[in-house]
Amino acid sequence: VCVDYSREKLKWNGWGWLEQDFDLHGREEGLWEFLQAQLGIDDLPDTPAVPLEEMPLPENRLSESQIEDLRGLLSADRVHVDRYERLFHAFGKSYHDLIRLRRGEIDEVPDAVVYPQSADELVALTQFATTHHLALVPYGGGSSVVGGVEALAGRLAGVITVDLSRMNRVLSLDEESLTATAEAGIYGPQLEEHLQKHGYTLGHYPQSFQFSTLGGWIAARGAGQQSNRYGAATKFFAGATVVTPSGILHSLATPNSAAGPDLRHLIAGSEGVFGFITEATVRLRPLPTARDYRGFLFSEFKTGADVVREIIQEHVDVAMLRLSDAGETWFLSQFKSIGKPASWASKATSAALDLVGVGENPCLMLVGLEGTTTSTSASRVAIARIAMGAGGIPIGAKPGKGWYGTRFDMPYLRDALLDRGVGVDTLETATNWSNLHHLHQTVRKQIATSIRRHTHVGTGEPIVMAHISHSYPDGASLYFTFIFPVALEKPVAQWKAIKREVSDSILENGGTISHHHGVGTDHRDWMEGEKGELGVAMLKAVRDSVDPHGLMNPGKLLP
Amino acid sequence: VCVDYSREKLKWNGWGWLEQDFDLHGREEGLWEFLQAQLGIDDLPDTPAVPLEEMPLPENRLSESQIEDLRGLLSADRVHVDRYERLFHAFGKSYHDLIRLRRGEIDEVPDAVVYPQSADELVALTQFATTHHLALVPYGGGSSVVGGVEALAGRLAGVITVDLSRMNRVLSLDEESLTATAEAGIYGPQLEEHLQKHGYTLGHYPQSFQFSTLGGWIAARGAGQQSNRYGAATKFFAGATVVTPSGILHSLATPNSAAGPDLRHLIAGSEGVFGFITEATVRLRPLPTARDYRGFLFSEFKTGADVVREIIQEHVDVAMLRLSDAGETWFLSQFKSIGKPASWASKATSAALDLVGVGENPCLMLVGLEGTTTSTSASRVAIARIAMGAGGIPIGAKPGKGWYGTRFDMPYLRDALLDRGVGVDTLETATNWSNLHHLHQTVRKQIATSIRRHTHVGTGEPIVMAHISHSYPDGASLYFTFIFPVALEKPVAQWKAIKREVSDSILENGGTISHHHGVGTDHRDWMEGEKGELGVAMLKAVRDSVDPHGLMNPGKLLP
Repeated sequence: VCVDYSREKLKWNGWGWLEQDFDLHGREEGLWEFLQAQLGIDDLPDTPAVPLEEMPLPENRLSESQIEDLRGLLSADRVHVDRYERLFHAFGKSYHDLIRLRRGEIDEVPDAVVYPQSADELVALTQFATTHHLALVPYGGGSSVVGGVEALAGRLAGVITVDLSRMNRVLSLDEESLTATAEAGIYGPQLEEHLQKHGYTLGHYPQSFQFSTLGGWIAARGAGQQSNRYGAATKFFAGATVVTPSGILHSLATPNSAAGPDLRHLIAGSEGVFGFITEATVRLRPLPTARDYRGFLFSEFKTGADVVREIIQEHVDVAMLRLSDAGETWFLSQFKSIGKPASWASKATSAALDLVGVGENPCLMLVGLEGTTTSTSASRVAIARIAMGAGGIPIGAKPGKGWYGTRFDMPYLRDALLDRGVGVDTLETATNWSNLHHLHQTVRKQIATSIRRHTHVGTGEPIVMAHISHSYPDGASLYFTFIFPVALEKPVAQWKAIKREVSDSILENGGTISHHHGVGTDHRDWMEGEKGELGVAMLKAVRDSVDPHGLMNPGKLLP
Repeated sequence: VCVDYSREKLKWNGWGWLEQDFDLHGREEGLWEFLQAQLGIDDLPDTPAVPLEEMPLPENRLSESQIEDLRGLLSADRVHVDRYERLFHAFGKSYHDLIRLRRGEIDEVPDAVVYPQSADELVALTQFATTHHLALVPYGGGSSVVGGVEALAGRLAGVITVDLSRMNRVLSLDEESLTATAEAGIYGPQLEEHLQKHGYTLGHYPQSFQFSTLGGWIAARGAGQQSNRYGAATKFFAGATVVTPSGILHSLATPNSAAGPDLRHLIAGSEGVFGFITEATVRLRPLPTARDYRGFLFSEFKTGADVVREIIQEHVDVAMLRLSDAGETWFLSQFKSIGKPASWASKATSAALDLVGVGENPCLMLVGLEGTTTSTSASRVAIARIAMGAGGIPIGAKPGKGWYGTRFDMPYLRDALLDRGVGVDTLETATNWSNLHHLHQTVRKQIATSIRRHTHVGTGEPIVMAHISHSYPDGASLYFTFIFPVALEKPVAQWKAIKREVSDSILENGGTISHHHGVGTDHRDWMEGEKGELGVAMLKAVRDSVDPHGLMNPGKLLP
């Protein structure tokens, strides 16, 4: 597979491939009816996006001679100032980004988009930016959902977005140490293709897998859906080269070290404000020869969470444990049922539910196992023992297979909903097990309350749901999804108000502001609450030491 | 058990309990004969330590009124300026420390030793130190072997050593999240006693376990002997409170987070230069109900290392894998044989070695399993398959039990050897598997070469040996021990010359300057080689942001 990531193959104001939309298999009408009923709206509006040619385009702040100089630094075909490239790179893929793009509410776009091919070119770009007081925005796959690649100039004279997707070579594979080193602009499928050809995998499959890059995963401290087995970015990340405005930083790719604080944990989560990650070394696993994804149902979220906790605290070898709350389990079953006579959660299952007393609002746990047939069998036995011991009902491999087959598709649905004035956003956090239920209930209620408070459309209820997506011996992440009517007169204000209240609630109730999406612009104002005034001062001191003029990705990460 | 860590119960110029020495079981003469033969010395000299009352004691740089003020800040009985306390706290427990203490070669000692009992008192101390331009040296168990607690004033007017051993309470135990929070001055046995009473363990058993503290483990990024199961400090460390001269830093004890760089990895390895760790939250495991320690022999280090690698890369549940090279295996068997007719490695075993062709210079692998009988049995089977498949010979539980029973004793031997002019020092590093053998051979040779170059005593050979002590999927640590005649006319110069050449060799050959001992004063000059100029600048920027006057542990960690 040679995937073509040319920018014109991708949506500039939506998710993924230009030629791909969410496939409703002819069930569109059923979906709109379902949403109209839920949200209490008689007829969902048509809210198409502003087409490219009608988008307002801010004037270019770079002079012709500056653009010429840039072309001299790289080459003419890797410096772009056209409408498409500038708009394509203006934002990431958050709800906040899409509503602005779709309505043409654009304040800033990059003045130039450049595609470097080497660390040397990046050094030259930092020197150019220093001389001309320009912001540099590192851009990998551009899939940030927290405003991480927004083209903000801050106090500087303009913005150059630095698209790293041409730096996509695998540089080395160390089969003895099970590590690989690659250029940071490599996309997930490109990296996996190379590794799998040799029998290895990084195993990092975030929902954005197809449209995100190695450097972005590390810069934003991402976590893949199978992070239990393969590790979040902080775990698989073994070393990097970072080009900063003050020089090049190499972190030693050592398995562990006591030589002072670990610079790798300053690089992971740095979100481009210290410099460009140009190369990274990552830890691999052999390609699994067996996969087993299956489902269990529990009568209560708390029971299911205890099962997840027990599995993890017993260190059972699992790739994924995904526990939906009752709201999400209900939504998934409804969504699957739309336009269909029956679904996995309806007929046989509901008879079984009645029989064993799992209740009317069951919670779905998906278990993903990867490894060898021996290891997955052993894990399956251990998990069945724990889950069924707690009253869980095994519902077989079908829900697991269904999830696996469509695991990258959901973001496409957001574009379809936005065409009809329906918003869908997600946010996520993590906390200790002893605080998990409190946080789950509090944030769930806060999301519903805030949506109601800031939405005066519809007579129904917003759809609010959550699942545990990543778990650890000491705690787990909570991933919330909410569907609501867009306040068409002021959608950005609506979103900001909801976001502010919910983020406050997360921090006040012991959660982290993000488990795996990052900070960007959206969570920046909560960094002081999370890290403390002193913690933020420490990070700013690091930033100032490598980027004294604040050229790197201004306005992100640090308040 | 209520262990009494009163400072007068401990040696001030040697290892451990005042009342305890290395027990040679009447085999002293045999040991001296063995060492004389190896090192080529006719008669080992008597080199007793200078007694306390004859030690030179630098004049106190604090005025009477400053000492009175300190007593006012804490209480009179927690501020000490007497000879014993000042000398006890002058150094840690490195070879470099002991030779200076034993010869009375003391330039600096703390002017006062204080025992705070709360974060508030520490805040008051930082304010006092700021006003009077005094250095503050955080002191936990004082077991640093890299000069981490040396009383250096640097450019300041004096030194207050801050002994945290009175801050030793367990504050909370979260049985759902499997975490505990304790004050950082708690000693290993105190913490484990509390945890084990409730059925849990931290499982962190470094060789210094009895004489080191929670805060020190984190500050120096330590690793226990069973780190494969329980994790090194960087893994079990979940959160901390740090009192800095600029305020208090709390790091959120979250299982994982994408809210920017992880401050916990700035605290871990900070070695007191950012502030005092006052409390820490750590991740626990249930107390194991089964333990199994046993041995295998391999014909070559490389074969054994491949087995260790395979076990770890298969993610077999092991607590410890310890592979001695041929030199260490030989030394251990010799050491055990001294004054005895036979040993585990001599009779039956050597017959077996002959039989199966494991060779004349076998390498010993100790495997430690902890968990339940089910889990340890499963691991035992997996390990036997891998080890015996590679030609390893199982030699039963006796060497494992022997090691386990004496695992904290070796440091006492150093004092006995120093009484007879024999030096023993250790150093350690880590690297990727693909570089492990190169690093092992190069450093081993460099140690022998450097000892020969800087030692003009004896006609024999220094004893140089190594083992793999901690292993990871991508690499392992190497722990070197070397025994040599002390150059009595200039032992510090001898040690410094050897240390410098070997440290250079480690960095030049891709190793980290320390896997689990830390940096302190001894490795400070290699930090730029390890982290790069920019990396050191980043860490200095962090330090300056929380400690602008450089009061905290000057001269340590940062060059």
